[in-house]
Amino acid sequence: MNLEAIYHIDDIPYAFAVRADAIKVRIRAKRGEVVRARVLHSDRYVPYGHEVPLELELAASTAAHDYFEGLIQTSTFRVRYLFLLEDAEGRAVWYGELGASVHRDKAGLFHFPYLNPSNIHEVPDWIHDAVVYQIFPERFCNGDPANDPPLTEAWTPEARPRPDSWYGGDLAGIRQKLPYLQELGVTLMYLTPVFLSPSTHKYDISDYLKIDPQFGDMELLRTLVAEAHALGIRVMLDAVFNHSGQEFFAFRDLVEKGENSSYRQWFYAEGFPVTEEPEANYLTFATGIKTMPKLRTSDAELAQYLLEVAAYWIRETGIDGWRLDVANEVDMGFWRGFRQKVKSVKPDALIIGEIMHHAGPWLRGDQFDGVMNYVLREALVDFFAKQAIGVREFSARLALNRMMHSDAANQAMFNLIGSHDTDRFLTLCERHGLGWNDLKYDVERLRLAVFFLMTYTGMPMIYYGDEVGMRGGYDPDCRRPMIWDEEAQDRELFGFFRTMIALRRRHRALRRGTYRSWLEEEALGVLGYIRDDGTEQVLAVLNHSPNPVELELELPAGRRVGGMLADALSGAVYTPAARQVLALPPFGCMLLVET
Amino acid sequence: MNLEAIYHIDDIPYAFAVRADAIKVRIRAKRGEVVRARVLHSDRYVPYGHEVPLELELAASTAAHDYFEGLIQTSTFRVRYLFLLEDAEGRAVWYGELGASVHRDKAGLFHFPYLNPSNIHEVPDWIHDAVVYQIFPERFCNGDPANDPPLTEAWTPEARPRPDSWYGGDLAGIRQKLPYLQELGVTLMYLTPVFLSPSTHKYDISDYLKIDPQFGDMELLRTLVAEAHALGIRVMLDAVFNHSGQEFFAFRDLVEKGENSSYRQWFYAEGFPVTEEPEANYLTFATGIKTMPKLRTSDAELAQYLLEVAAYWIRETGIDGWRLDVANEVDMGFWRGFRQKVKSVKPDALIIGEIMHHAGPWLRGDQFDGVMNYVLREALVDFFAKQAIGVREFSARLALNRMMHSDAANQAMFNLIGSHDTDRFLTLCERHGLGWNDLKYDVERLRLAVFFLMTYTGMPMIYYGDEVGMRGGYDPDCRRPMIWDEEAQDRELFGFFRTMIALRRRHRALRRGTYRSWLEEEALGVLGYIRDDGTEQVLAVLNHSPNPVELELELPAGRRVGGMLADALSGAVYTPAARQVLALPPFGCMLLVET
Repeated sequence: MNLEAIYHIDDIPYAFAVRADAIKVRIRAKRGEVVRARVLHSDRYVPYGHEVPLELELAASTAAHDYFEGLIQTSTFRVRYLFLLEDAEGRAVWYGELGASVHRDKAGLFHFPYLNPSNIHEVPDWIHDAVVYQIFPERFCNGDPANDPPLTEAWTPEARPRPDSWYGGDLAGIRQKLPYLQELGVTLMYLTPVFLSPSTHKYDISDYLKIDPQFGDMELLRTLVAEAHALGIRVMLDAVFNHSGQEFFAFRDLVEKGENSSYRQWFYAEGFPVTEEPEANYLTFATGIKTMPKLRTSDAELAQYLLEVAAYWIRETGIDGWRLDVANEVDMGFWRGFRQKVKSVKPDALIIGEIMHHAGPWLRGDQFDGVMNYVLREALVDFFAKQAIGVREFSARLALNRMMHSDAANQAMFNLIGSHDTDRFLTLCERHGLGWNDLKYDVERLRLAVFFLMTYTGMPMIYYGDEVGMRGGYDPDCRRPMIWDEEAQDRELFGFFRTMIALRRRHRALRRGTYRSWLEEEALGVLGYIRDDGTEQVLAVLNHSPNPVELELELPAGRRVGGMLADALSGAVYTPAARQVLALPPFGCMLLVET
Repeated sequence: MNLEAIYHIDDIPYAFAVRADAIKVRIRAKRGEVVRARVLHSDRYVPYGHEVPLELELAASTAAHDYFEGLIQTSTFRVRYLFLLEDAEGRAVWYGELGASVHRDKAGLFHFPYLNPSNIHEVPDWIHDAVVYQIFPERFCNGDPANDPPLTEAWTPEARPRPDSWYGGDLAGIRQKLPYLQELGVTLMYLTPVFLSPSTHKYDISDYLKIDPQFGDMELLRTLVAEAHALGIRVMLDAVFNHSGQEFFAFRDLVEKGENSSYRQWFYAEGFPVTEEPEANYLTFATGIKTMPKLRTSDAELAQYLLEVAAYWIRETGIDGWRLDVANEVDMGFWRGFRQKVKSVKPDALIIGEIMHHAGPWLRGDQFDGVMNYVLREALVDFFAKQAIGVREFSARLALNRMMHSDAANQAMFNLIGSHDTDRFLTLCERHGLGWNDLKYDVERLRLAVFFLMTYTGMPMIYYGDEVGMRGGYDPDCRRPMIWDEEAQDRELFGFFRTMIALRRRHRALRRGTYRSWLEEEALGVLGYIRDDGTEQVLAVLNHSPNPVELELELPAGRRVGGMLADALSGAVYTPAARQVLALPPFGCMLLVET
């Protein structure tokens, strides 16, 4: 056994509380080596030697490692444990705080000393059922021409925005389109910033307490939220606390008064007087973006101001949470206070950070509920759009992403295929042909990615317009005005999105079940997986190749229920006992449910 | 190369800020495999491919792994990086967020997105120079017979306490002995609880706001602290917030009023009325210790009360920090608030948790500064007292302990060989003879452990009386009254403690330098290590065997300075160039410094 590859630590994400009386433990070993994994556990105050064994399940595999996991129940809230791993030859190794050893006493013990409320990464219950829709307000719908900016351009399917193109989208427009969102089936909409700002994207905020009049006003937002709620749709706004805009009153004060400004500590001035032209002498977002002066969120006074902003909009308009812009560059102490504030005002508010890389440090239960899952998106792009990786590597990338976080964090992810900060997925599919075949299957590959998203663990997020086949490269091209002309929409694609959302909403296992890989047919390009919520099992199969494939239906080991299976998409019925053949067209998929 | 053994994560303790403009990164690989390790890093907003390489140093080795580390300087506070490892045959592997790969692009990148103040595990500067002395007040010195408990027993070297034996130790006694502590050279004393309580140990507190009259009063504590400060000695008290005593007003209220008590949420009643006899129907510390009702520290009101207690004693008496009893069973959210409160009242106060196992989750910078390093003590006991492990395993255990934490946390450890909750170290040495030799070398082995403690990284802690050769088994035997009769003291041992403390205080490298293993002569039983603060290098060598050993003085590679070396203990002078022979008696040691 590769002893040096074994890893566990009595901390997140290898040991974490899942509820008041249970912790989950995971252990990692070299892929394919361990055939049986157990954890031996007891109360911490019981003498050594009274541990109870618990069989662990193979939960996920990356290219290098297998991860085994299991749930330890505790009635005393105190757990002490160690692992026992066996290989195919029956060789056993103990693993504890001191490492791996063939001698139990040499391995040491792990501790989860007391399961207190703070150990539980508490996320709102409703997130499990959420399907998210991201709106870029300037480009979604122009509901009120009276508030259009001076140079508003024509809202046509052919529009190609420049960074400073205006189209007149607003809150009134979103309000008009609530029935559309309801028809699609989404339950949560996330709006990029709506506060006063000189730009189209409004990530350079002039006034955190005022809705941009181009979009509407507080009263209109309140109405929008209320009407959305009446339709079962929650609303999240975008908190831009890493930096302000140049017109933010505190920054103006700093520029005016320099060293004597009361807001000196809110920013990072590199000299006085503070100058904006020709060179900014203050830190900004990214490198030298002078329209976005960086905020010093570790400053207690600024923190208090921003936390009040966060609470204000929840209290005044009833919004259901915040998406946090550039969340990874803001002080973590600020985010801890942010969580306390937001959850105290609205206990089931959702907090989602924008983090494009591994987000473990922010997902320990004291900061965010989840993040925008760009790490997953990278895998989806590489697999479905770029065809750069095979089934096995895709599955491994998914596994690594899940195993870096607690279950709660994985459930609270915004799983996306694109956003206002990426190329659109369909455009990526178009750009990356299959190379050896004239049939590009662009839309089919988008559909397959959507099929995956809607059957995976975590909240599926749709970037406005993807559902009607909108195209667009990187910003500003991915921010074209929404296509409302049904002739120009891909209605079939819209129907597919709608169907997949409906299936997700119909099957609890797709929303709350475990995810286990089932088929990884590298040569055929077939991926199969099981979602299981303890009552129902749903089997998803997809063909990631431009060839039709056939394979004999062999159910996974340990399947609890017998009977017939039906493909929820085509309606075709299968009798597993008869070893029927599943046929999948190029880039086809099926969702097998009990019938 | 064993790719599955490689490990890094962009989080503590593998990546952590060490100051406002530098982070330390560590990477783990199978022991002995990697001959060259580099990290390639750049600002996160610079295009890929502009990374700067940094050579990493082999910092520590456990039985299974080598750990390499290096300091990445950043002027923009944003770091992106990946590793490049090479084996002896020149084979190279990249390691990034996606794992190990021979293809750089397949490895992915790690991120330390922004170095904010909260990323820095900030510990008081004075801890680097601290030598700690733990006092159990009832047993240290009886300075005021007027406040003796009714059944006070005779304070003699022969006294053998039962759990309820009283000896009359008090704050006046500690005050009398300040010159003794100064002579010994300690700079911080930690007192186990001094608050009103019916027991000798006072871990069952009746009144958190009152000094037990058997010990003195607030005014006396204030005087003690002031006088200690005048002698350069800081004072820490013991916060018992996991549980109260039964006489605590809130618990009395709960027993009296049951469900209607205003303090119902401060405890864990399992039924009403709350009964104490014959069976307690409330949760307690450990199992059924009814004198210690467990406190529900996740309750906001209770938290506020206890945080006020913590602030009160700092403000009123000027104490320099808190040691936290049963810290691992208290809600982590409470500890985060505790840190904020304590550091706001006294920014350089020290917070030390009592945690007897891996303490990583509490040492991320948001809770404690350090912990009582019982994990280290286990290794010291196994090596020096029990002779159960050899040089190599001892060194590996030290390495694992260090590599589980940031540098700051390692510096903020209370490194102990014993406490009021363990057998005394000398007694353990006596109990574990060498087996094959009549010469037991008990005191020599204690001396060697002390030599190690005083030359290791972290704060050495002395449990009262160890320095004069006190003996005692587990509680209550380890809590005998201090031996003040110089005839009964081991004065030579006292002199050795004093010498070692003085050497630690004289050599900055011993207090603030890095620790690197140098000699691990398993067969001879010789361990050598280097402490290096960038200016000075100090070499420690110890003989962990009952045989005299001789070895040729061969200086470690990379030693910066030449010249003569002197053993700071014996005064013997060595000329490294002449390849002189170092001779160490059984369980002997030497501290080589430049001369």
